[in-house]
Amino acid sequence: MAHRSAGRSALARHLAVLDAFDPLHPFLTLTEIASASQLAPSTAHRLVGELTREGLLERQADRSYRLGVRLWEYASRTPGAVGLREIARPWCEAVHRRVRQHTQLGILQGTEALYIERLSMPDAVINATLVGGRIPAHASSAGLVLLAHAGVGAVEAVCRAPMRRYTSETISSPEQLRRVITRVRGDGFVVTNGHIHLEARAIGVPVRGAGGRVIAALTVVVPNDDAPAQPIADLLTAAAAGASRDLVRASGETGEIAPETIGLSKRSVEFIAELEADGASATR
Amino acid sequence: MAHRSAGRSALARHLAVLDAFDPLHPFLTLTEIASASQLAPSTAHRLVGELTREGLLERQADRSYRLGVRLWEYASRTPGAVGLREIARPWCEAVHRRVRQHTQLGILQGTEALYIERLSMPDAVINATLVGGRIPAHASSAGLVLLAHAGVGAVEAVCRAPMRRYTSETISSPEQLRRVITRVRGDGFVVTNGHIHLEARAIGVPVRGAGGRVIAALTVVVPNDDAPAQPIADLLTAAAAGASRDLVRASGETGEIAPETIGLSKRSVEFIAELEADGASATR
Repeated sequence: MAHRSAGRSALARHLAVLDAFDPLHPFLTLTEIASASQLAPSTAHRLVGELTREGLLERQADRSYRLGVRLWEYASRTPGAVGLREIARPWCEAVHRRVRQHTQLGILQGTEALYIERLSMPDAVINATLVGGRIPAHASSAGLVLLAHAGVGAVEAVCRAPMRRYTSETISSPEQLRRVITRVRGDGFVVTNGHIHLEARAIGVPVRGAGGRVIAALTVVVPNDDAPAQPIADLLTAAAAGASRDLVRASGETGEIAPETIGLSKRSVEFIAELEADGASATR
Repeated sequence: MAHRSAGRSALARHLAVLDAFDPLHPFLTLTEIASASQLAPSTAHRLVGELTREGLLERQADRSYRLGVRLWEYASRTPGAVGLREIARPWCEAVHRRVRQHTQLGILQGTEALYIERLSMPDAVINATLVGGRIPAHASSAGLVLLAHAGVGAVEAVCRAPMRRYTSETISSPEQLRRVITRVRGDGFVVTNGHIHLEARAIGVPVRGAGGRVIAALTVVVPNDDAPAQPIADLLTAAAAGASRDLVRASGETGEIAPETIGLSKRSVEFIAELEADGASATR
């Protein structure tokens, strides 16, 4: 196998190592990391050592590696994922309690929907969504909702990319995609029957943040049967409105959410700021 | 101010930029990043550009920056944080519903307790804990529980570090620390009255993973009054036992948790693996 080390920046090579870990492969040996990241074994060895010393990787008792808790620490400070997820969580739970099937929150990342939440139960219908997983936007209900409210550039990028056909029902041409997202814009929700698996139907609505901008899609995956979709679409619309209200309330002057202060009293936030200021002068 | 660029590895410098963002400062300008990371402005500018291109930073409309969603994606694959948090969540919620005060889950990272969960409400007692935040182990109830079940090396490291005094009640000597953790080991729980703020009491118990190893501490922060601590300690002990049972059940053959498959049906996991295999051969 050709190694692709040459020409990649130091950062890109470190990230290639981290990218070797995916939702279904959370534990990898050094050999597996080198292979997945297309790095020479000696390079992979050195990079893994650096990443382990910094806490971005953790070595396990069996000598395999896993992504490290330091990455989680950084992530706990990402307003675009954690802030959104925490604020929307009670609304996702409310939907999940009623529908008792997969309930998910997705955001648009390039040409894909990235799922930042999925509430599920082991006996729910078959589903391809993982928390932290991605599905191409043309194939996912969240993707279609997000494209319906995204700029022309985002839609064109999806039209240019190859459109993977999961089933006979998957959207497979730019014309079909444009037609569907125009309709989603008018209806205010999407229903996809069997686009990823013939047994599953997805229903989704947009979630708006500050300034009315669509920042996420709230979707459910239910059995693909003859049950009417409208009652679920109505439930989702009500929950999305609640989440939007809480998102706007949590946004600061800049329209941005500071994830860490969600649900904390003002007095506690002030106390923490004080401790931090004291700590900086006293012990550092 | 002296710049510390020289002598630091490329990785360390990229991480210094990410480290500039903390729970109370999620949005920073380029100037603030350079200052916090002790990098020359030109170096900070270049590194911020690289990190933004890779999605580890996101530029906002007002030209400030925030940590990017790509970090959250990596984090969603960290068994040591996400897996643990997701599995323990129903048990944290059960405690929170009963106690109606801060309920938190902490893990030991070096000489500090790192909090991976905090359920709270705005009218709860004053508290210094943030999700993703750290408190020195000698001062936090989670830290004391974790040290009581950690190796001698971990305890010695805390004894060697300066022990910040938050209040007159904070543990402030190695002798006192060793006495307390011996007692915690015997009692099975810890009670700290006013160690971080005189108005707050913390009560904590260990959470065990595969092989009976203590991997986290479940704690509550309640008003520091005359109410007996034992009923809360009993509640925490019962919840921790439930969480431990679920953790052991979720652990694979290696005793490790694959976070992404929590709560998904076996059929869905197999379907996702199939899709992934097809995708690798068909579209890549």
